[in-house]
Amino acid sequence: MELLNVDTVEEARKKLLEAAEKKRPDEEEVYFTRGTGRILARDTVAEENVPGFRKSTVDGYAVRAADTQGVSESVPVFLRVIEEIPMGRAPEKTISPGEAAYVPTGGMLPQGADAVVMIEYTEKFDEESIAVYDALSCGRNVIREGEDIKRGEAFIEKGRRIRPQETGALASAGVSRISVFRPWTVTVISTGDELAGVEDAIEKGRTRDINTYSLSAAAEGYGFKVADALVLKDDRDSIKKAISEAMTSSDVVLVSGGSSQGEKDYTADIMDELSHGGLLTHGIAIKPGKPTILAFDRESETILAGLPGHPAAALLIFELFIGWLYRELTFQKEPEKIKAEISENVPSAGGKATCIFVELVRREGRSCEARPILGKSGLITLLTKADGYTVTDANSEGVNEGDTVEVTLF
Amino acid sequence: MELLNVDTVEEARKKLLEAAEKKRPDEEEVYFTRGTGRILARDTVAEENVPGFRKSTVDGYAVRAADTQGVSESVPVFLRVIEEIPMGRAPEKTISPGEAAYVPTGGMLPQGADAVVMIEYTEKFDEESIAVYDALSCGRNVIREGEDIKRGEAFIEKGRRIRPQETGALASAGVSRISVFRPWTVTVISTGDELAGVEDAIEKGRTRDINTYSLSAAAEGYGFKVADALVLKDDRDSIKKAISEAMTSSDVVLVSGGSSQGEKDYTADIMDELSHGGLLTHGIAIKPGKPTILAFDRESETILAGLPGHPAAALLIFELFIGWLYRELTFQKEPEKIKAEISENVPSAGGKATCIFVELVRREGRSCEARPILGKSGLITLLTKADGYTVTDANSEGVNEGDTVEVTLF
Repeated sequence: MELLNVDTVEEARKKLLEAAEKKRPDEEEVYFTRGTGRILARDTVAEENVPGFRKSTVDGYAVRAADTQGVSESVPVFLRVIEEIPMGRAPEKTISPGEAAYVPTGGMLPQGADAVVMIEYTEKFDEESIAVYDALSCGRNVIREGEDIKRGEAFIEKGRRIRPQETGALASAGVSRISVFRPWTVTVISTGDELAGVEDAIEKGRTRDINTYSLSAAAEGYGFKVADALVLKDDRDSIKKAISEAMTSSDVVLVSGGSSQGEKDYTADIMDELSHGGLLTHGIAIKPGKPTILAFDRESETILAGLPGHPAAALLIFELFIGWLYRELTFQKEPEKIKAEISENVPSAGGKATCIFVELVRREGRSCEARPILGKSGLITLLTKADGYTVTDANSEGVNEGDTVEVTLF
Repeated sequence: MELLNVDTVEEARKKLLEAAEKKRPDEEEVYFTRGTGRILARDTVAEENVPGFRKSTVDGYAVRAADTQGVSESVPVFLRVIEEIPMGRAPEKTISPGEAAYVPTGGMLPQGADAVVMIEYTEKFDEESIAVYDALSCGRNVIREGEDIKRGEAFIEKGRRIRPQETGALASAGVSRISVFRPWTVTVISTGDELAGVEDAIEKGRTRDINTYSLSAAAEGYGFKVADALVLKDDRDSIKKAISEAMTSSDVVLVSGGSSQGEKDYTADIMDELSHGGLLTHGIAIKPGKPTILAFDRESETILAGLPGHPAAALLIFELFIGWLYRELTFQKEPEKIKAEISENVPSAGGKATCIFVELVRREGRSCEARPILGKSGLITLLTKADGYTVTDANSEGVNEGDTVEVTLF
């Protein structure tokens, strides 16, 4: 079997990124509460300081720290209470030496005050004054204006997926509209004379289509819009026509099946034709997933991907190339990997990166165990049993029991 | 400060689970492609075998393995080709000794055959026969009927979040309708005289509301339906009325703010009244998050949660109790944690579990580093800078630089 013309994963990624660098998704502006889960397209700048004023972090009395110097549990200082500051309102008075004002948690400090003594360290002395039993440093129990977020600060960076905490931070800084990436539009095509839909009556020899369903779900997981999901017979003309039509409306066209070593291997030809010679790679040194085709058409700016027919391989290649490219172009961090000890020897496929699907098993007081899911590569249950995968280096001889591997959750 | 009446995290969880065990969400049936991301409510049983017939995993010739015994590269066996089996169709003939049939990858094996020789190990000899250069064991390059999934097998378990691979597996087994949990309905209430909306004009002393936005987003992250998100003044009667009304339509009512040690601490009283004495806990030994109230009303079957006003603490407590309870009741696994080395000493708050928000930094060839995000607990940027959190044991004295901690992504 020829391995001469295949690319490594890194080579294929490099070619894809260079060719498709213009495919950075468009931006769109949305109301910030509609942005959860989406990817910020620009550094987001605070409209105002957070907090917008010096704020107490406790229930207590705003004081001048200098007034409390030398104070202790046995030697209090007595301060005159000149105001009770209501929540959400600005103080009316200025604190002079010897004075204090009651301030609730989250309340605004009056001018002159520079610290807050917790109510637990005070005692009412008479109608007008309190005894303070704590020596305070300047700034104690106070958040400065703008200490959390400064007006004009890029407080959330582009590429960040908006989590509930970012939604909260946007609200706090008065940012109600944000710029997020508009995810790609994708067409998913499965080819094969044997394919039947999930609800079709099925005769012996036919197989239910998996890839339009699983790849559509994977695409939707990235927020992509699935324009169409088609199951086609293994017929050159109809496949070419379908890809060509999809290229007018989709950013990415995924075609699974038809890319094995078998007789019907014309997907690469079609993709090369339709991309005006933009074929990037035809064969990647990874197992499973070798018969992968990547092309980019500069005219229509469409990414074409021929994925293996095996469901596990198709999902893996989608993740490793299309998902990866999308993360790169939208400035996202790669997902965290989990370090785990592999529970048995797995040889690598000579000269190819080898993807090992694993189940993660937690172990008390020790690192996680990664148990390889073994089975023939056509099995879909390879994937449903797996929590993630680890990819061995193309030059390695595989992994040995007890080796630490990095697992990408899947 | 009294720590006598607070529960540990484990005690509070136990009480909550015991009281609210009837809150297991209802099931609903959906078309399987609408189920991605949702939680399976029942073990899902395959409607048919996958594959539905003995299937070749390669392009080649279906043969009787016995016919290839003793065969090698220099000593081939010659077999008569009696059929070319088309993709997606049942073979018409039976393989007798000395016979073979062409079968494509994914094609159906004919009766009599028990292995497939890859086309690379064969040679056309004449119009009718081939030379085979490989000795095959029985079952070689064949997936048995039902080898992937067996009819009647519970091939995806309840509690599983449906990923693209489960969607694919469902399609493969002809399962088009599935039973998933219908997520809870939630009302989110923020209280405080100082609160302003994200687009309100703001005067000094007022603070923009964060918690209705961040808690709604967190609830939506679980698929919960947010029935209402309200910002209320710190007024006993209107808060009581709002909670009471929310209890008629929501499974969970979240109230943030009003649960500190300050003067306006009546949320616990209101929740106890409205739950007919169902107050479970008032104070949890965790930092941040101590002023947490949990109650369950058996009449309306509503979970009431008083969350701290601090945004970081409110989100953390939502995650540790409401998110946790939902995962428990829907049979979900707890999310994987990432082991990392902490980069500096962090003392624990005496007698309390201490939550340390951390940024994860990858290091080549070594385990991940967890860098504590330091700052006052009122800061929302504590959370936007954090990748996750780790919780120290209530009895520990904290963590020391270099200790391995388990980080939950957030």
